[in-house]
Amino acid sequence: MAYKAPVRDLSFVLHDVLEVERHAHHFADADLSRDLIDQIVEEGGKFAEEVIAPINRAGDQEGCTIDGDVVTTPKGWKEAYQQMVEAGWTSLAFGTEYGGQGLPSIMSMAVGQFTAAASAAFSMYPGLTAGAYHGIEASASDELKQKYLPKMATGEWTGTMNLTEPQCGTDLGMVRTKAVPNGDGSYSITGQKIWISAGEHDFADNIIHTVLARVEGAVPGIKGLSLFVVPKFLVNEDGSIGERNGVQCAGLEHKMGIHGNATCVMAYENAKGWLIGEEGRGMNNMFVVMNEARLGTGLQGLAIGDAAYQAAVEFANDRLQGRALTGAKNPDGPADPIMVHPDVRRMLMESKAFVEGGRAFILWTALQADLQKSSDEATATKAKDYMGLITPVLKAYLTDKGFHVASLAMQVHGGSGYTEHFPASQYLRDARITMIYEGTNGIQALDLVGRKLPSNGGRAIMSWFADIDAFVSENGEDEAIKPFVDGLADTKKKLQDGTMWLMQNGMANPDNAGAASTDYLHIFGLTALAYMWAQMAKAAQAKIAAGDADPYYAAKLQTGRYFVERILPDAQAHLTKMKTGAEVLMQMPAEAF
Amino acid sequence: MAYKAPVRDLSFVLHDVLEVERHAHHFADADLSRDLIDQIVEEGGKFAEEVIAPINRAGDQEGCTIDGDVVTTPKGWKEAYQQMVEAGWTSLAFGTEYGGQGLPSIMSMAVGQFTAAASAAFSMYPGLTAGAYHGIEASASDELKQKYLPKMATGEWTGTMNLTEPQCGTDLGMVRTKAVPNGDGSYSITGQKIWISAGEHDFADNIIHTVLARVEGAVPGIKGLSLFVVPKFLVNEDGSIGERNGVQCAGLEHKMGIHGNATCVMAYENAKGWLIGEEGRGMNNMFVVMNEARLGTGLQGLAIGDAAYQAAVEFANDRLQGRALTGAKNPDGPADPIMVHPDVRRMLMESKAFVEGGRAFILWTALQADLQKSSDEATATKAKDYMGLITPVLKAYLTDKGFHVASLAMQVHGGSGYTEHFPASQYLRDARITMIYEGTNGIQALDLVGRKLPSNGGRAIMSWFADIDAFVSENGEDEAIKPFVDGLADTKKKLQDGTMWLMQNGMANPDNAGAASTDYLHIFGLTALAYMWAQMAKAAQAKIAAGDADPYYAAKLQTGRYFVERILPDAQAHLTKMKTGAEVLMQMPAEAF
Repeated sequence: MAYKAPVRDLSFVLHDVLEVERHAHHFADADLSRDLIDQIVEEGGKFAEEVIAPINRAGDQEGCTIDGDVVTTPKGWKEAYQQMVEAGWTSLAFGTEYGGQGLPSIMSMAVGQFTAAASAAFSMYPGLTAGAYHGIEASASDELKQKYLPKMATGEWTGTMNLTEPQCGTDLGMVRTKAVPNGDGSYSITGQKIWISAGEHDFADNIIHTVLARVEGAVPGIKGLSLFVVPKFLVNEDGSIGERNGVQCAGLEHKMGIHGNATCVMAYENAKGWLIGEEGRGMNNMFVVMNEARLGTGLQGLAIGDAAYQAAVEFANDRLQGRALTGAKNPDGPADPIMVHPDVRRMLMESKAFVEGGRAFILWTALQADLQKSSDEATATKAKDYMGLITPVLKAYLTDKGFHVASLAMQVHGGSGYTEHFPASQYLRDARITMIYEGTNGIQALDLVGRKLPSNGGRAIMSWFADIDAFVSENGEDEAIKPFVDGLADTKKKLQDGTMWLMQNGMANPDNAGAASTDYLHIFGLTALAYMWAQMAKAAQAKIAAGDADPYYAAKLQTGRYFVERILPDAQAHLTKMKTGAEVLMQMPAEAF
Repeated sequence: MAYKAPVRDLSFVLHDVLEVERHAHHFADADLSRDLIDQIVEEGGKFAEEVIAPINRAGDQEGCTIDGDVVTTPKGWKEAYQQMVEAGWTSLAFGTEYGGQGLPSIMSMAVGQFTAAASAAFSMYPGLTAGAYHGIEASASDELKQKYLPKMATGEWTGTMNLTEPQCGTDLGMVRTKAVPNGDGSYSITGQKIWISAGEHDFADNIIHTVLARVEGAVPGIKGLSLFVVPKFLVNEDGSIGERNGVQCAGLEHKMGIHGNATCVMAYENAKGWLIGEEGRGMNNMFVVMNEARLGTGLQGLAIGDAAYQAAVEFANDRLQGRALTGAKNPDGPADPIMVHPDVRRMLMESKAFVEGGRAFILWTALQADLQKSSDEATATKAKDYMGLITPVLKAYLTDKGFHVASLAMQVHGGSGYTEHFPASQYLRDARITMIYEGTNGIQALDLVGRKLPSNGGRAIMSWFADIDAFVSENGEDEAIKPFVDGLADTKKKLQDGTMWLMQNGMANPDNAGAASTDYLHIFGLTALAYMWAQMAKAAQAKIAAGDADPYYAAKLQTGRYFVERILPDAQAHLTKMKTGAEVLMQMPAEAF
């Protein structure tokens, strides 16, 4: 049942599909060779398999515990984190100016898939540190950056994001946490934050909280919010740890899954904080962090699906039960492995198609994140447009499908999967949160149709259509990959149709956009994966045509065929549904539900 | 967050849609008046709300515990069960000859929805008793019946079904539990059974196990299996409790949900058992019980969905967050209730459409169960045909959708739903097992396409099509319900198309049938619910046309409209997928997954 990092598949996507090295000249801070990429991917896979995966189950069963305000992580977790820091895995993508390794996002998103699959709850500690790091890096003063970022870059200190309060999660305009200027450049922060991942733990000497609060007297709503850095321990001028700050963990949430993650209620009482960026720009500054966290969450959802799929494959090969419909395949055994049954294979192929398609989509998106930094303006602008457009799709679609795959994995396990003796339950429970946090998937859909689509006059979605059209016309004559190109062209047409419908109907009545948003996002997700599958098919076909006999390529084409034949038909259903409009939803009186 | 029994909706289906009283003359053992029906439904609802629902959460959080072989149920459960027995709710559908109330199945399936929604885990204790009761009633000798059934009918003793062993669940041909004749008509049973629901507990003085075992020397495989009754305590000639039998609980399963159900490992060691029916007919005898248990499981899955939906509606009305896209609806409050958001309503309407459609489907099926007993041969035959055909559809489709609804309910709750402070997590975890036990949903799909469809030359499916055609032609001209009738006609056509494809391709290659089975079952489920929705729309429309101003009827039509417009489009996707055939699944080498 041991998790195996999909190094082979990742390497195919990086080298043969995305041809990362070809783009490397756009990246500001890395000299990315094929050798370096391979070494990182291989070593990262090994670390996830050997150090992280073994502690995942204990994390679920033991969870975090609190005594006073001291939070203890599960057995072996602190040691694993220390190994991670020592081996440098926490500092991969942070800038070299603060001691990070300065590798492009695509490398951290590659290795991040291994970490999150090996232990989703564990991966949140470095994940939240990255969020807080980038929030500070993007908007804080040089003084604050110098003070906090170097130790966060190495992972010696961890970070958090403090947004949610009991009365508000999605609607942060209602934040009540208060900041009072102390007159010395610092503020006194008072309030309660809930669901703070990695809010308190025993991994690090210091925890650097980024906190959304309202400066006393500021306007109500979103525009009155500011972002602060609030360390658990104050940091002295010389960088040493000073006195304890007025922030503590007031309790742990009792959750359905991700038990190894310390999900904290945080109480701030005149805690000293320093403004990140300007007053009243808190949400803008937080968005930098949230967008990154959303990509990380999409990756996490899919990665859990990958781990669950692997467990299901192992079970399907091991479990002997019944005979193949076409006659015994294991005649000397008491029964055939359930892998012989078409419906079991349907569940596994569906999982494989989503996992591999989603993996390519994550890496493609990570490439855009890196291309944003290109000195070539056109390249950078287009990549930025894509990041805006794609982030909600990647977050919502891949977490919906990650959970779907985890549920399929449980189904393959049958009754065994429902017991806690097998890992399927943990995967299913862990995966479910990814559809909710960092903005529920409904919020992502609204972000997509309400903000990202119309942004810059629809420039991003036009690029998307143009790129796909170019691919289709370039490859449409290639008989060997025709079903993939046709499937892509057809799904893209439906996405275009849905986009047009939104333009025509969403403006007149915004409820139409809201009512259509989730179905539209799913057509977008299908198009994105169809695009990835078409590119993967092309690359695999090229290898086969060149005489490469590795059975990996035939399996890749077969899996893509499943995607085209048995997953893409959902696009039409989503399109039909979204076009029904808001009336059927909105005419129902609230009391009639 | 209190569960409310949907008495109003049930009453509508029973009286206005199914017109149960009109069919009552077919039932052998009940004089069913409208007054009696209403009284049972109302009182059953009250009992579920007031006695069962309040103990559900403790069941999840506390679970069952074992000390030696003594199993203790959660706090308050034993008392609730005793109240249930005293009030007569456990004896509703058992025959009057053994002390039951002799009411038709439709009444126990009506009240059973309340019980299962109020506490799915709790409902399993009487549920398993009913299974064991009917197994004994159908095939055992009069002596055995007289010995066990009266106390089981009242609920004073409970029952179990012992099928699964560590090496076999689906493939019962591999059962190893051994039965050795004692020479006095009894057998010595030895072996281990796992996942035995209600296998041991503190509810009752005796537990009557029905156990699948192989008589020493019998042929291998299914045909060598026999069914035995094995009481926890032997029963003396005078009916009093005698000495302890050689069966005990060797451990409890640690499960993702239904914690209040004692899911036991049962160890049989020379336990005394008596044959139910003939040797070698164990599976045939067990099938009587399994079919009933499958209906009960479908009911359970949907009922959990109902409870989850209710919790989601309450949360959506209470939680203030953000503003409506079309302007504030609660301008004096800090925010609008999330009920104003189209995407939240989408999730609630989807849930409501499945829950109400599924509820009608359960009651329609229960009516068939009763009509089987008609003295009119044509009526009885058709009802029997339907029971065979519909059982796998009802089990699999309603449990898939019950889980889907429970997941939507969690999504409506946002982050709150993922914590154990709200009931959404329990519903989701509890619902998940219903897709697995009593035959996984994949097994149901195979049963449908492999056995039920071709049975009697396809007589059952022909009746199904003919009944729908009759309804369509009878109501096709009624403009007021045209969308419902058209939706039904269109979906039925797809089901027919899929059936034809199976006939043409499943015979040639059984893998084609297996590969198509789940998608086919879903088209069947959609057709069944479309049929129910069309009938409900007709009944609601008739009320409105007759001047009844109860807003319940308008809401019913609106919900049905959602079903037609936003759920039925899935039928085409399933049809397209199923027609792709087995090749895409079967060509993949096992090692390439």
